[in-house]
Amino acid sequence: MGVLIIDTIEKGVVHLRSVYLDSNSGMPMWPEVISSMLPYMSEHYGNTSSIHAMGNEPKKAMEMARSHVAELIGADPTEVIFTSGATEAVNLALRGSTETASEGKKGIIYSQADHRTVTATAEDLSRKGVRTAMMPLDHLGAIKLKEAVSIMDQGGFHLLSMPFASQEVGTFQPVEDLVKEAAEREVLVHLDLTRSAFQVPIDVKKQGIDLATISSNDLLGPKGVGALYIKKGVRLKPILTGGGHERALRSGSENIPGIYGMGKAASIVKKRMGDYVPQMERVRDALIDGLLRIENTHLNGNMKMRLPNNANVRFDFIEGESILLMLDLNGIQAASGSACSSKTLEPSPTLMAMGLKHEEAHGSIQMTLNPNTTIDDIQYVLEVVPGIVENLREMSPLYNRIGD
Amino acid sequence: MGVLIIDTIEKGVVHLRSVYLDSNSGMPMWPEVISSMLPYMSEHYGNTSSIHAMGNEPKKAMEMARSHVAELIGADPTEVIFTSGATEAVNLALRGSTETASEGKKGIIYSQADHRTVTATAEDLSRKGVRTAMMPLDHLGAIKLKEAVSIMDQGGFHLLSMPFASQEVGTFQPVEDLVKEAAEREVLVHLDLTRSAFQVPIDVKKQGIDLATISSNDLLGPKGVGALYIKKGVRLKPILTGGGHERALRSGSENIPGIYGMGKAASIVKKRMGDYVPQMERVRDALIDGLLRIENTHLNGNMKMRLPNNANVRFDFIEGESILLMLDLNGIQAASGSACSSKTLEPSPTLMAMGLKHEEAHGSIQMTLNPNTTIDDIQYVLEVVPGIVENLREMSPLYNRIGD
Repeated sequence: MGVLIIDTIEKGVVHLRSVYLDSNSGMPMWPEVISSMLPYMSEHYGNTSSIHAMGNEPKKAMEMARSHVAELIGADPTEVIFTSGATEAVNLALRGSTETASEGKKGIIYSQADHRTVTATAEDLSRKGVRTAMMPLDHLGAIKLKEAVSIMDQGGFHLLSMPFASQEVGTFQPVEDLVKEAAEREVLVHLDLTRSAFQVPIDVKKQGIDLATISSNDLLGPKGVGALYIKKGVRLKPILTGGGHERALRSGSENIPGIYGMGKAASIVKKRMGDYVPQMERVRDALIDGLLRIENTHLNGNMKMRLPNNANVRFDFIEGESILLMLDLNGIQAASGSACSSKTLEPSPTLMAMGLKHEEAHGSIQMTLNPNTTIDDIQYVLEVVPGIVENLREMSPLYNRIGD
Repeated sequence: MGVLIIDTIEKGVVHLRSVYLDSNSGMPMWPEVISSMLPYMSEHYGNTSSIHAMGNEPKKAMEMARSHVAELIGADPTEVIFTSGATEAVNLALRGSTETASEGKKGIIYSQADHRTVTATAEDLSRKGVRTAMMPLDHLGAIKLKEAVSIMDQGGFHLLSMPFASQEVGTFQPVEDLVKEAAEREVLVHLDLTRSAFQVPIDVKKQGIDLATISSNDLLGPKGVGALYIKKGVRLKPILTGGGHERALRSGSENIPGIYGMGKAASIVKKRMGDYVPQMERVRDALIDGLLRIENTHLNGNMKMRLPNNANVRFDFIEGESILLMLDLNGIQAASGSACSSKTLEPSPTLMAMGLKHEEAHGSIQMTLNPNTTIDDIQYVLEVVPGIVENLREMSPLYNRIGD
């Protein structure tokens, strides 16, 4: 450990071994997506609002992208608007629907299965006097249906927000049941498709969803773009006002290269998902199987009802942070807690809500795959991890005490 | 007219003549900026929040970009945060400062020299009970200083928003005087640098600015990125909550390729501005001179105190929209009213606030240059425009009546 692992030496260039298992925090892009964006960066730099020729290509590109994104999730193109990413889409869904909700019914139901974007926004709205309530999770990370229903029955809520699957432990949520219960009580449902859209088929129409957030980078598309699905008839107020773009729901000259890239990525995902998802799942299963062979190691979340790219395990007696650092020295990138804000020292709110103890949450790491992850990558990881865990345990006062 | 104008035929490929004079609505990118972004799209796709190796390059790229943007406007890097564009930066400045302003002092002063983003946001805040007041413009498009001061003297305002120069007619605003008067009355100043930052040297520190909006595309950088300068000590509440990025002022995984591109563009602008601005100004002067040679044609705005890339002229007796369509058929792209929302049929609020009559505002077109615009381009435009104007006037009942 602490030694650079040489993968290959080719024409005098040393390639270090590197295995990226932190896809939740940033995805590689489909190479075709990068090249598809270039003409909109170099040549077609006009504005969609222009009435002259230079506005035509950007306009066409944007509407093509809108169709692709809509098609991926079973929506009508008129129901999709582009944002600067999932964070803005979530904020627009939560804040925008709160503004249009009638007095006495401004309230948001959410859970610790949600991404920090949802929980932080709900907390901010709560400080501003909006009613909020949190649905409890079971020990596998799923929202408890009965408890969720009794919260809805209290009344005074206009929106229920849930992820399709917990971003951190990957557990699928009881979407169908919750949508049914919410619809009966005239509560809108916002479904956060972040981490799900590239690996699970979604049909917002069939599933009766009112609002859905999609991240572009999640689809192996460019960063800085996202989309919000808004079911026909659902009314929102914008959070960004100005030139009145996107039917006045999202002002700001459109990021055409990014939007086009997102559309291209959506079309690729739609086409290839059937191939790469089973493959990714097999690779992920090999990873989980191998890790669980290390003694005193446990899986967080549900083995079966889980996102195909997600592995989240905890190692007794040691700190996730220390494991991450040692993995990093060995060229392996993983995450602890919420992948995109690993820096925080607080234990993961999701894991705590699942009933894990403080030290169990701290001993957990998250490994998230993408369509490029190979079984070779995983074999290397499984060669490295047991040694790291053993060494760290050797140094752990907790472990030694038990060993005594 | 209506005929395709062939520029060159090279190896059987016909190149049509095209002159882009709508830079306010979309800028070409510096080619070096495009290539500089590619490694962050293909290779360095990590998240700045990650503690492992894949987070390092994005982190470095982001801080380098922040330094470049800060340097361009004379700020400290810690005073610059990245947004998804000028629209978001303006919304954050106006909405975010309103939230932190003390009760009884929540109020925004603005003008019709502002971009629609500012006026629409002020209007939205006004509907929510925030005090707003509009400063009048003189006939050249500058904010009337005395009237602005007497609005401030009424009290109850926390912020004055103004553009460095009117985006539409290019008239410089009395920034120094207004900042001095605002500071004496403890009113913050938000300076919108959109359309200005690439062609006028700015020093926010020397100029005593509290908040400043910069668009990336304006610097010939990528779309979908912008920045807000927030003077040390000025407090804002975020409009997008979530993972707590950008010191909790702008959540959302950062668009690293875009941010890096913006930084690169800022560094290029800083370096080359001294060369391309005088050149662009000469080309623009030739354009204005040539257009004013057409009879019954007038310049909107101030000849001298004007953005180097801006020409805004009105042709008596005819509609700007018709001129734009005919120009477009001849391969020339220009705009009427606010460049990025030319579609609206309302007369330009800026021109109306300057005291123009309805038909004068409607007879105006805006031609905006960029560093790539050549004197050759302008010569072609000046060959085409007189004929278009003459033909349209022939068809105009207004003109004929006068001609009778």
